[in-house]
Amino acid sequence: MGIPEWIRKIANAQVKQAIIVRSDLELGKGKLAGQVAHASVAGYRKVLSQFPQVARKWEEEGEKKVVLKISNEKEMMSLFQSAKDTGIPASLIHDAGLTQISPGTATCFSIGPWNGEEIDKLTSELKLL
Amino acid sequence: MGIPEWIRKIANAQVKQAIIVRSDLELGKGKLAGQVAHASVAGYRKVLSQFPQVARKWEEEGEKKVVLKISNEKEMMSLFQSAKDTGIPASLIHDAGLTQISPGTATCFSIGPWNGEEIDKLTSELKLL
Repeated sequence: MGIPEWIRKIANAQVKQAIIVRSDLELGKGKLAGQVAHASVAGYRKVLSQFPQVARKWEEEGEKKVVLKISNEKEMMSLFQSAKDTGIPASLIHDAGLTQISPGTATCFSIGPWNGEEIDKLTSELKLL
Repeated sequence: MGIPEWIRKIANAQVKQAIIVRSDLELGKGKLAGQVAHASVAGYRKVLSQFPQVARKWEEEGEKKVVLKISNEKEMMSLFQSAKDTGIPASLIHDAGLTQISPGTATCFSIGPWNGEEIDKLTSELKLL
């Protein structure tokens, strides 16, 4: 895959990361925070290796993040697939399942760090967690 | 600072990251998850630059994380200082304060990724969030 056009003009872009969490699992807040942190680190690592200039821009701008909720696994997987189809780095998290939920349960995923406008196109219907 | 002895025998160590969150702020769960993710990424970046072999071990082991709670800012800052005094990489997060709390409020900090046994010595009295 080539370098997307917006990255060539990255100084003009606002870079953020969105983390989309299933609300139907009703995770406890510590558990949930751990899953979101997994997704955030996984997304950062992916972008750092594929598009380091995007990761750097995100760092410079204070690593803006939003945490959004989605109603169930089916909707989450559909949006995850849309992000991948659009070519935006996305990282899906499966819980190790030691506590609260079954091993391997898909809990959340991250989109980016990436161009905030492109993320908004995918996530505009989701509410803040 | 030299390389700590345990890193020379890193194959024998279990590496984890702890994130310690103030419970007195009573942050909403999305806000809280975002702060924890900040701390996790900041800690990972710090260790990746200072002790890359530790960051790699953490990745190989599935990036184990625990989220713990602490009762107030004073206790948090005291524990943060203890971690630094011990030479363990620790990253303090101040919220940008756009929502819920005042700008610059210290919300949480990460310890590691680092030797789990050394982290446990510092955090053994804290409960899971």
